[in-house]
Amino acid sequence: MTPTLTMFYLVSVVVSAIAFAFAAYLYFWVKRQPQENKRITEVAGLIRDGANTFMRREYKILAIFAAVIAVLIVVFLPTPIWQAGENWWKNVAMAISYVGGTVLSAIAGKLGLVVASLSNGRSAEAAKKGIKPAFLIGFRGGSVMGLLVVGFAVLGVAAVLAIVKEASILLGFSFGASSLALFAKAGGGIFTKTADVAADLTGKVELGIAEDDPRNPAVIADNVGDNVGDVAGMGADLFDSNVAALTSALVIAQSLTGGDDKSVIMVLCYAALGLLASIIGIATARITKNGTPTGALNSSTYVTSAVFMALTAGATALFGFSWHIWGCATIGLVVGVIIGLATDYFTDDTKPIVKKVAHASKSGPAFTVLSGVSYGFISALPAMIGIAISALAAYKICGTEALIEQYGANYPLFGISMAAVGMLSIVAMIISNDAYGPIVDNARGLAEMGGLGEEAIRVADELDSAGNTVKAVTKGFSIGAAGLTVISLLGTFMSEANAAGANITGFDIMDPTVFFGILVGAAVPAVFSAMLILGVDKNAQKMVAEIHRQFNSIPGLKEGKEGVVPEYDKCIDVATTGALRELIPAGLVAILATIAVGFIGGPTAIGGFLLGNIVSGLLLSLFMSNAGGLWDNSKKYVEAGNEGGKGSEAHKAAVIGDTVGDPFKDTAGPSINTQITVVSLVASLLSSAFVAFSFFG
Amino acid sequence: MTPTLTMFYLVSVVVSAIAFAFAAYLYFWVKRQPQENKRITEVAGLIRDGANTFMRREYKILAIFAAVIAVLIVVFLPTPIWQAGENWWKNVAMAISYVGGTVLSAIAGKLGLVVASLSNGRSAEAAKKGIKPAFLIGFRGGSVMGLLVVGFAVLGVAAVLAIVKEASILLGFSFGASSLALFAKAGGGIFTKTADVAADLTGKVELGIAEDDPRNPAVIADNVGDNVGDVAGMGADLFDSNVAALTSALVIAQSLTGGDDKSVIMVLCYAALGLLASIIGIATARITKNGTPTGALNSSTYVTSAVFMALTAGATALFGFSWHIWGCATIGLVVGVIIGLATDYFTDDTKPIVKKVAHASKSGPAFTVLSGVSYGFISALPAMIGIAISALAAYKICGTEALIEQYGANYPLFGISMAAVGMLSIVAMIISNDAYGPIVDNARGLAEMGGLGEEAIRVADELDSAGNTVKAVTKGFSIGAAGLTVISLLGTFMSEANAAGANITGFDIMDPTVFFGILVGAAVPAVFSAMLILGVDKNAQKMVAEIHRQFNSIPGLKEGKEGVVPEYDKCIDVATTGALRELIPAGLVAILATIAVGFIGGPTAIGGFLLGNIVSGLLLSLFMSNAGGLWDNSKKYVEAGNEGGKGSEAHKAAVIGDTVGDPFKDTAGPSINTQITVVSLVASLLSSAFVAFSFFG
Repeated sequence: MTPTLTMFYLVSVVVSAIAFAFAAYLYFWVKRQPQENKRITEVAGLIRDGANTFMRREYKILAIFAAVIAVLIVVFLPTPIWQAGENWWKNVAMAISYVGGTVLSAIAGKLGLVVASLSNGRSAEAAKKGIKPAFLIGFRGGSVMGLLVVGFAVLGVAAVLAIVKEASILLGFSFGASSLALFAKAGGGIFTKTADVAADLTGKVELGIAEDDPRNPAVIADNVGDNVGDVAGMGADLFDSNVAALTSALVIAQSLTGGDDKSVIMVLCYAALGLLASIIGIATARITKNGTPTGALNSSTYVTSAVFMALTAGATALFGFSWHIWGCATIGLVVGVIIGLATDYFTDDTKPIVKKVAHASKSGPAFTVLSGVSYGFISALPAMIGIAISALAAYKICGTEALIEQYGANYPLFGISMAAVGMLSIVAMIISNDAYGPIVDNARGLAEMGGLGEEAIRVADELDSAGNTVKAVTKGFSIGAAGLTVISLLGTFMSEANAAGANITGFDIMDPTVFFGILVGAAVPAVFSAMLILGVDKNAQKMVAEIHRQFNSIPGLKEGKEGVVPEYDKCIDVATTGALRELIPAGLVAILATIAVGFIGGPTAIGGFLLGNIVSGLLLSLFMSNAGGLWDNSKKYVEAGNEGGKGSEAHKAAVIGDTVGDPFKDTAGPSINTQITVVSLVASLLSSAFVAFSFFG
Repeated sequence: MTPTLTMFYLVSVVVSAIAFAFAAYLYFWVKRQPQENKRITEVAGLIRDGANTFMRREYKILAIFAAVIAVLIVVFLPTPIWQAGENWWKNVAMAISYVGGTVLSAIAGKLGLVVASLSNGRSAEAAKKGIKPAFLIGFRGGSVMGLLVVGFAVLGVAAVLAIVKEASILLGFSFGASSLALFAKAGGGIFTKTADVAADLTGKVELGIAEDDPRNPAVIADNVGDNVGDVAGMGADLFDSNVAALTSALVIAQSLTGGDDKSVIMVLCYAALGLLASIIGIATARITKNGTPTGALNSSTYVTSAVFMALTAGATALFGFSWHIWGCATIGLVVGVIIGLATDYFTDDTKPIVKKVAHASKSGPAFTVLSGVSYGFISALPAMIGIAISALAAYKICGTEALIEQYGANYPLFGISMAAVGMLSIVAMIISNDAYGPIVDNARGLAEMGGLGEEAIRVADELDSAGNTVKAVTKGFSIGAAGLTVISLLGTFMSEANAAGANITGFDIMDPTVFFGILVGAAVPAVFSAMLILGVDKNAQKMVAEIHRQFNSIPGLKEGKEGVVPEYDKCIDVATTGALRELIPAGLVAILATIAVGFIGGPTAIGGFLLGNIVSGLLLSLFMSNAGGLWDNSKKYVEAGNEGGKGSEAHKAAVIGDTVGDPFKDTAGPSINTQITVVSLVASLLSSAFVAFSFFG
């Protein structure tokens, strides 16, 4: 059967429509679940309001930012408007597609938030009835966002391509998605950890009260943070990764020779089938008889993977796509699973590493930190090797002489980009798992604040713990996919620079302009993440001061006198103001460094810069995400009664480790992904400017 | 004047003879100083014995290791002996030069230890008479090692070259120096931090007794550690850096065309003049009227730099050397100073960063750690840019068409290698400053244990604090120089691989075998440093247990009853056994990873591997060294009475930060330097094997 582009534009529309319909069904299903407890309804309302206030203020700032960028794009990209002649419409198209990317990303985040605020209280109340219904509400709430995010990505990419035909305009769409994600992730990440760290330090450590004790003025802010950082920010982040992977694959597919539109069609087809596979996976997810929530989440991930492989194999046979590329996509997916499992080994509390760190805590917090840092560094190794091997394998599969003769020199790069697409194919499933985490985390808090009783809290706790464990696997996926995507974006950059008149055949590390770029590029993720962590550090200190003020000035609060309520909104305000102030500078540093290196060293320096950025970015984000997860679960392991249990010296040390890990894993670590993607896209977009002018290039 | 090689072999011999004579003079000068206090003599004796025991056991293990490697070299390098034919003598020569490198390195470390054990007690007693005499003893003691180490390097390199004529045989000498340094640094670093961390945690934190309180069973082990880690290990490390820089410059110089021996002569000449400049700097170092020890150390560094520039300018004019190369060496030296100053900004307690971290400590240890990690990452940026710019500048200076036509394509690389030689030219001065630190650190402890009174302790404290501050500047130098050296070693590797029949013109990052190498190479320093830190972590926990045992089982020890002495030797034994067990695996991982990548991906993968290793190695070593120094000085700043002073919550948090920083700055951070060098040398030595066989190469 001969596939046509039009056919697959339609397929993209149909599959995303199915996803939207299914999301709507799940949304109303969740909404139908009972929420009767007055206290929970009230607190869930506070959380929703806090999150909405933050998002509104954040989006206002980002709208200004996006407007400025859109104007700059109209004037300068892809070619300066005064040189564009009759192609002026491309500048307008790129600006529109940029704005489209930001808007879709923002909407996805916002809708995720809406359904998360709906699910948390309902999941808490369902916990009274048992683990299965509570699980289903949490998971289905998360799935709504997963389906929307990926539906938007598939639909948006297909729409832009159908209208403008040129994949390079998609770079604008992708940049829109990723620039919004960069700030949403950074802002949300700073907010959530400001509140979390401050709440833990004043509550757990100083006063020895429980995590979600309603006396703590920061407790609502902490729950708001889970929503804006872990739900909305994460959604924006994965929307961005998915769009970037598809964009990069499409740009390269269009540059291939002799393949008609088949390679382009193949990308669209695989993206649609990935979404379809995820829909099936989501529909079948539930806790089996004698099963655990972790088992349910993981097994639906595996189901989705298997369905994706089967569907794409069928499509490849039916439409006569390249089996080489199918192989690349499959390798990407399999390596993604392996990376996830390796990450799991370092962060799961049934495995030895978490126990070792918990044991080290007995000797004091310095040992908690040192052992966590060490294992965090070691944990980066399997993923780095996995990414390296999947890139190498994809390249070798598609790099035979015959294939290069038929499709051109870019074919191996196409293979790498399709490995990334394969790894991200099940992203809707991943987002569902990821969003499940903060929902049940909230549910746990609400169960405590609503006084639902010990059994409900225990159920909510079990759901929460499963969320933490599964997070490791999904994070491995998304970091791995980001790594492969940016490798292919490096190829995209080279194509774009050559199209602009540069004559680059590669980036030789012995060329000192390349080397210069590499060293500067490698320093950027370190500085970027340091700025985010310092933001959390600074804001959390402010919030600790605010909490102390409330404890000292509100009579009866500390003692838990009946009817005395802390001023929750003050804490939310501290977190909001602080996060909004810190979110722009770090992102700008990364973007400005790219521009500076480009104008100093030209396109060859930028090639090096991107490489340095990828390498140190991967290392640091793996290190930070894994070390953070490791500390978190070590603390939970101690709290479960090991190494002295709650209240022991080991527990105090473990809490300090967890506090260090919080901004590592939820602010800096996952933001680095987005930073790498943004920088790669900026480089591709500005390639002609760097070719036209640079000091040493 | 036409210089000849023979002339400069003689110059090398003469200048190193002057250095040895001057070292001997200083040694006997130190020995003549009075040491009368019985208690100090006794404790200094304990320290000396402990250090000697450790060194003897360490050297025994390393001798076995070196013997195995020497045999392997005879059989396999530079060409397998069965293929070498009449060139079999080269294998023998390389093995002998390898052994020579290890032996000289070992002797330099041992002699440094001897004079350090002589100086510490005398410096303590001189502290009663005032700061000037105490300073002079500490500094001159350190200088003996500085002079010996660099004298050995200059003499050794010249001797090997004079005898075998081929610079590539020097790779064996350099590998000998660096493989010994790798293990000496790792072993010494683990020893010193095991003892330091355990002593601090049990003494300062648990019991609230002073740093060098003689009741603490770990206190002697701590002082032994200063000697074996910071004196002997550091000496081996800088011997290795110096030899590697000279070797790399000489190998490239011999590969130039049309320059007769002039470029080779120039390297020897600059090395000798660097030593001469350091002798002058050392001879003039003293505290001026109203001056401080920090001022004295820094100003003699600047004097040495200025003298070096003047002498080399004179030599360049007199002998008609290339002014381009003089420019490269000067840039290297100037950038080294700038890197040092930038480092100083992040670690000096009169500058804002240290104060910020101290202030953050008020909110608890998690904030101390988070802010230290963040500033540590940021502090890497100036040095990375500095190294990148000096490499770029050197390349541009020597990369003009005319110069390349005259000297061949390797000339720009020669420029980079001479920038490294320039940066390391004043290494004798740097070692003197560096070795001064542990000597006066010991002196402080001895002053306390010998009961020399408050004024003497205050003087010793001031000397110690100057040592910490100056360390930052010297570390910046040595990391920067290692960076430049390994860049030129990358060139050396390419030359060697091409000589073995590979046809490499560069390493393209778009080539997936190169990319594969980069990712794996980047992970290695992370894993390597993690293993060392885990070694410290594990051993310190054992030593804490041993200290607790003694406190619980020796009656009167905790209370400080007259005449009750702890079992110091038990703690020394814990540190020794542990360090010796941990020192080999980490080093082997780095070496074996190189070999694995080489046989999997061939020489192109190794090119990438070396690059990834350099980039992440630089980033991590700068991060760890600076963060460690920052925490150390923040703690001192709090102890000086700020943010609540001693005993406050901020102090406890700062102590935890310092404990985390200890293995960062004194075990892992400085060992990464050596790891990078070793890996580069292994790659060059095995290049022909990788060319002959690899799976994907």
